[in-house]
Amino acid sequence: MSDVKQSEQQLHELMRKMTAYRQAIGLMNWDARTGAPKKGINQRSEALGYLSTEVFKLTTSNEMGEHLEAVLSDEGRAQVSEITRKSAEELKKEYDRFKKVPEEEYREYNILKSKSEAQWEQAKSEADFETFRPNLEKLVEFKRKFVNYWGYEGHPYNTLLDDYEPGVTVDILDDVFGKVREGLIPLVKGVKESENKPKTGFLFEHFPKEKQRAFSLEILKKMNYDFQAGRLDETVHPFAIGLNTNDVRVTTKYDEKDFRTAVFGTIHEGGHALYEQNISTDLEGTVLSDGTSMGIHESQSLFYENFVGRNYAFWENNYDLLKSYSNGQFDNVSIDAFYKAINEAKPSLIRIEADEMTYALHIILRYEIEKGLITGDIQVKDLPAIWNDKMQEFLGVTPPHDGVGVLQDVHWSFGAFGYFPSYALGYIYAAQLKKSLDRDLPDFDNLLREGELSPIKDWMTKHVHQHGSLKKPVEILKDTTGEGINPDHLLSYLTDKYKELYKF
Amino acid sequence: MSDVKQSEQQLHELMRKMTAYRQAIGLMNWDARTGAPKKGINQRSEALGYLSTEVFKLTTSNEMGEHLEAVLSDEGRAQVSEITRKSAEELKKEYDRFKKVPEEEYREYNILKSKSEAQWEQAKSEADFETFRPNLEKLVEFKRKFVNYWGYEGHPYNTLLDDYEPGVTVDILDDVFGKVREGLIPLVKGVKESENKPKTGFLFEHFPKEKQRAFSLEILKKMNYDFQAGRLDETVHPFAIGLNTNDVRVTTKYDEKDFRTAVFGTIHEGGHALYEQNISTDLEGTVLSDGTSMGIHESQSLFYENFVGRNYAFWENNYDLLKSYSNGQFDNVSIDAFYKAINEAKPSLIRIEADEMTYALHIILRYEIEKGLITGDIQVKDLPAIWNDKMQEFLGVTPPHDGVGVLQDVHWSFGAFGYFPSYALGYIYAAQLKKSLDRDLPDFDNLLREGELSPIKDWMTKHVHQHGSLKKPVEILKDTTGEGINPDHLLSYLTDKYKELYKF
Repeated sequence: MSDVKQSEQQLHELMRKMTAYRQAIGLMNWDARTGAPKKGINQRSEALGYLSTEVFKLTTSNEMGEHLEAVLSDEGRAQVSEITRKSAEELKKEYDRFKKVPEEEYREYNILKSKSEAQWEQAKSEADFETFRPNLEKLVEFKRKFVNYWGYEGHPYNTLLDDYEPGVTVDILDDVFGKVREGLIPLVKGVKESENKPKTGFLFEHFPKEKQRAFSLEILKKMNYDFQAGRLDETVHPFAIGLNTNDVRVTTKYDEKDFRTAVFGTIHEGGHALYEQNISTDLEGTVLSDGTSMGIHESQSLFYENFVGRNYAFWENNYDLLKSYSNGQFDNVSIDAFYKAINEAKPSLIRIEADEMTYALHIILRYEIEKGLITGDIQVKDLPAIWNDKMQEFLGVTPPHDGVGVLQDVHWSFGAFGYFPSYALGYIYAAQLKKSLDRDLPDFDNLLREGELSPIKDWMTKHVHQHGSLKKPVEILKDTTGEGINPDHLLSYLTDKYKELYKF
Repeated sequence: MSDVKQSEQQLHELMRKMTAYRQAIGLMNWDARTGAPKKGINQRSEALGYLSTEVFKLTTSNEMGEHLEAVLSDEGRAQVSEITRKSAEELKKEYDRFKKVPEEEYREYNILKSKSEAQWEQAKSEADFETFRPNLEKLVEFKRKFVNYWGYEGHPYNTLLDDYEPGVTVDILDDVFGKVREGLIPLVKGVKESENKPKTGFLFEHFPKEKQRAFSLEILKKMNYDFQAGRLDETVHPFAIGLNTNDVRVTTKYDEKDFRTAVFGTIHEGGHALYEQNISTDLEGTVLSDGTSMGIHESQSLFYENFVGRNYAFWENNYDLLKSYSNGQFDNVSIDAFYKAINEAKPSLIRIEADEMTYALHIILRYEIEKGLITGDIQVKDLPAIWNDKMQEFLGVTPPHDGVGVLQDVHWSFGAFGYFPSYALGYIYAAQLKKSLDRDLPDFDNLLREGELSPIKDWMTKHVHQHGSLKKPVEILKDTTGEGINPDHLLSYLTDKYKELYKF
């Protein structure tokens, strides 16, 4: 066998091993959140630490370096399969990221991160930014240094964006987010001034947890979520996790005073899960057997949550079912009134509770702040004031304290700068995909009305799911929609929908 | 630092790593049995394979060999802690076991094992011994070869016994099991001929699963099982698994037509779990943080199942509670009648369904067969006939087919020869411990009557649990009871109890 072919084989063996460790790590994380005994936390963390270290060692081993060099040489590229080549490119990216940072600094950074999350949690609960400030300053400092080690093209923030959304740059986002912001301002104003606000009281009446669970299971089934390759559990923060394509688990949260948490949460996580359940088995055991970016992942969850779950036709099919599980609070509520209530839009303080119309504004605010932190144009100490000013400017609300303001999100406490934009990109992508899907399945609403969701899933599998990370986000967009990132479709969807709902 | 001290430190580091892997492996096994998605089995098996291989590599690494040599040298033993020394002795035993078998043979053996379990399952369900025979012959052949590689003193079967019950030999077992057999014969006869057989119909009336679960939870709480360090789930085959001392999980099985399955199963597994939850934290992260032998482990589960759970006084405390969860089937059943019913004894075909009086006979039968297989005095092809003859001789029953005869147990299919005796030893140990406990807590029955089980658990923790594998089984017996293995206490317990119950 040639050296290249041997390296190809070895690389796959290394990936299978990494996949095995990651599966164990994934299960331990799932278990920790779904009901692992409380007292086991220290021993569990230690075990997780050992396994993560092994993955890190594999990622950065000399062996890995040599095989990557062989496979990614001109000669190598010509000989190996597309899957090997693209896997190697992914692995090389990780390899370089780790190798370029001095080991000691990386270790310090990791210790800082693990301490910061607890610090942040306390600061948030006490609404005390000052206790978190020193940690945040250090985290920003590390990221700025790392960006220099890693290098960047154009704008230093580009390097961070690339972690979550390869191919996306500040130039692109400035343009796209600028358009989104401009397009949303009249909508926020229109909704705010509208006299056609929906009645929502019935949303908050008692809905027993067990009934919510039963309804959630029915909806997942209708979405074609495969229960032979998954399960639904309860957690404080809902999530979906793919241990492998045949084991993709969903969790949800039940609020007996607001059934929307569980129902829309389940649909959202179900969208993520459909992605991972339908990645091609050709990619099994490689680093490509995963969502291609945070944004594309989010496009799947948001597509199901909003374009399916908040669609009138979807409830034509499911409203009676919901009623049958409820305590009777919807008996005198027309489907029109119900539809309006679940699509209520209003400016609010908290990102994760925001509606689909205002959500992107929360993201753009964070994007602007992160860019400034990385260039040094914004100082950590000024964050609370800047945050509050921007909230007023974007949404017309001002947080009463930092706990519901600048401290609300966990992301920065574990160094995740560059992550937020993916959430808004997910909305934009979802609307673009919907536009293309409408061309292929013009009877979309009718499918929803009939509860026939499998053609929709099959379309998403064909264009998105199956490719895993074999295609980059931009390739998926291009191949499916013929366009690059284009916020117009999201804006016209929101404009049409909310002008009609709020009559302005 | 001296070389020995460095090796001591390195050995602990290796053990912590092994502990981490084992924790992940344990969780994956627990997950696979408690509800992991069916389709994930192949990918899960592959991941498990990788992790197990890592543990094997650590166990047999040159690094391990060097540190063991340093620590277990005369100079080493004098310098290291007792925990290090005893850990090293355990590790050395494993190291030698693996190192003495040629790698290729060991690999073949493992492949054979993994195939045999499926083969056995099919053979059992079709009651077709011949389809399993070739595999079983090969497994026996491997074991015989391994015994020669490993070496033995006295009898070749001793080496296999040593895996599960260190210190126990054929000489000891021939004597002990001979006495047990002799003591049980008149009991089996007495029960068989007795006209005082209990009524048991009410045991088999419908008892809803959810109510059984609620009652099981109450009983675990009363046993002082720590739910902050554990949880109760449902599986086809009940088990207890200690991921670490702060995460010891119990499972049970619900049969709505026989509540005893869940209740006594939970108490049994709860006994195992109390052992693992109460191992001293000094042993954390070492190979000693585990039960010291299968027999001592089984003594804990059987002590709780029989000496507590099948005790009259226990039901004085819990019978009303059971009634409150049941469908009313016990309303007209006196506690006396209930007590007699749950202590029904009769010769039967299946080991795992046997009562406490006849159970040991099932084990002695297997012990005699295993000895013969290892010496070569018994041929695999003759097993069905030998099995059936012995069943008639020991218990007076003959299996209608091999599925409920020689094929009933899984153990041989994964090469576990030498394991069965531990089950009977567990009964013997439990009775010996009970005898000593009676001296320290003479009001045992009264504690049960009052539902005050914590002094009992504390006594077991003091004498058994806390020591983990720091003490060998014989040391625990000697230190606690002043005796070696002594079956007299089990025999007099059974004789007294069943003579009274069956009036003979």
